[in-house]
Amino acid sequence: MGKLLIVGSIAFDEIETPFGKTGKILGGAATFIGLAAGQFRVDAGVVSVVGDDLPEEYLNLLKERDIDVTGVEVIQGGKTFYWKGKYHNDLNSRDTLVTELNTLGDFDPVVPEDFKDADVVMLGNLHPNIQLSVIRQMKVRPKLTVLDTMNFWMDNTWDELMEVIKLIDVITINDEEARQLTGEHSLVKAAAKIQNMGPKYVVIKKGEHGALLFHKEYIFFAPALPLEEVFDPTGAGDTFAGGFAGYLAQTKNISFESLKNAIVQGSNLASFCVERFGTERMLDLEKHEVDLRLAQFKELTQFNIELT
Amino acid sequence: MGKLLIVGSIAFDEIETPFGKTGKILGGAATFIGLAAGQFRVDAGVVSVVGDDLPEEYLNLLKERDIDVTGVEVIQGGKTFYWKGKYHNDLNSRDTLVTELNTLGDFDPVVPEDFKDADVVMLGNLHPNIQLSVIRQMKVRPKLTVLDTMNFWMDNTWDELMEVIKLIDVITINDEEARQLTGEHSLVKAAAKIQNMGPKYVVIKKGEHGALLFHKEYIFFAPALPLEEVFDPTGAGDTFAGGFAGYLAQTKNISFESLKNAIVQGSNLASFCVERFGTERMLDLEKHEVDLRLAQFKELTQFNIELT
Repeated sequence: MGKLLIVGSIAFDEIETPFGKTGKILGGAATFIGLAAGQFRVDAGVVSVVGDDLPEEYLNLLKERDIDVTGVEVIQGGKTFYWKGKYHNDLNSRDTLVTELNTLGDFDPVVPEDFKDADVVMLGNLHPNIQLSVIRQMKVRPKLTVLDTMNFWMDNTWDELMEVIKLIDVITINDEEARQLTGEHSLVKAAAKIQNMGPKYVVIKKGEHGALLFHKEYIFFAPALPLEEVFDPTGAGDTFAGGFAGYLAQTKNISFESLKNAIVQGSNLASFCVERFGTERMLDLEKHEVDLRLAQFKELTQFNIELT
Repeated sequence: MGKLLIVGSIAFDEIETPFGKTGKILGGAATFIGLAAGQFRVDAGVVSVVGDDLPEEYLNLLKERDIDVTGVEVIQGGKTFYWKGKYHNDLNSRDTLVTELNTLGDFDPVVPEDFKDADVVMLGNLHPNIQLSVIRQMKVRPKLTVLDTMNFWMDNTWDELMEVIKLIDVITINDEEARQLTGEHSLVKAAAKIQNMGPKYVVIKKGEHGALLFHKEYIFFAPALPLEEVFDPTGAGDTFAGGFAGYLAQTKNISFESLKNAIVQGSNLASFCVERFGTERMLDLEKHEVDLRLAQFKELTQFNIELT
């Protein structure tokens, strides 16, 4: 059983999709990553910051899944990060209606002593300087450091992002971000350029079109499981990342074959996340459901052609 | 070795992509289907119509690959179907600049006696009444009839299209066409509705995002091989269909497992087609290259997770 350090936001999300709308519900990258990683046998801990307006029961949801939250700083009198968004009809795009950084704006992460020797570090989407601070606090170089980021940081904090990208092993970004980061339309060319920036592995998330893993001349692809209905895509990317990192922390095997399996595990868990609003589906997800869908995932992708 | 009947256009194509432009070159659904099917051990014949402006060497390219062209009617004084198109920068969309149906406008297909007992019939994209005429000329019900069609026939010949769809076993259409045909955004729901219209198997082509095969509750997915550069997408869908039908005609095995393999073979061949203008790459493609890329295709998609 490996140790997994998760860094990311814990948030109030307010979501509108064609199927309905929520009030303020639990969200945030660290939340989704934690809930996904909680499906594996890992010793996981979260570093984050919230205000004292976050209901205690929200943190308890992580605690109940044996996720250490001593690294979650609660700012007295502070407000928790709040995001409100509305998805378009095809659910492939969304408008951000409100972003209030609140306590996340001054987030100065402190890694608990117990997690300074984590096997895997999962850096959720945050200001690159926060991600950098966490990397620098580690006492032992992790077996694998995974970084998630987004176009916002490419637009606004390019130099800082380049600094952190140099130091990590795996980057997870979407296809448009990979193109923005490199100026290459071809994802094969983009992934090669990104590897030259530092990361040995590049994971390109294509949403409903699956995910690609690149490493040297090797490429692996996992589709998203075709669903009757995507209800709410919020958190799917973080759930993917949490499944990916959680599986690798459990196995402590950082071979390409193992990373392929991690991509499949991440895709599999993300297929549940989108079935209901926010964290709802991940909170009642049971092991036998995960295993059943993993079997479906194999049926979806595995074939048997004899090569002559 | 099975018998494969191919029905479709033989055309002059004139293509512009960001990488350059061609003059009038060989194109057409039957051409691409034939060249792809020619990679398999099949007894293939083409039914089509051309004018006497088509250089004899073009038909010889098919003949040299043991594809029977006695079903290709040459109209003396007639002109061959001509299509001119320009691709946008991302190569995912294109504008049709010229369409001259010419002899194709009065195409009255005549299936050669030798092919009225074909094991597999591949109906390339044409007016549904032409497709229907071919089905009615068959003496023996084929093991498998595959139909390709497009949004144009949904817009203009809905009733005729519904008539032919009732009679075929496999339909291949793209994602937007599947949505148009059913009014369902979810491809899972769309595929279920299409199966209720007649076809036992539904193949949804998503271009660079791969292809899905649906049959009852079973789903199989094959990605497009990630390429450094897509040079010209013209003919990729037909090459896919030709590989699919060619493989099935070779094996004469119409199980779901065999159809999965056929999807992989089609995807594999399509990955070559897009590497150069028109039929260029398919014309110099050799077996060892196909096999090598099939091995890459396995690496790209196959994993080994133990289910517990």
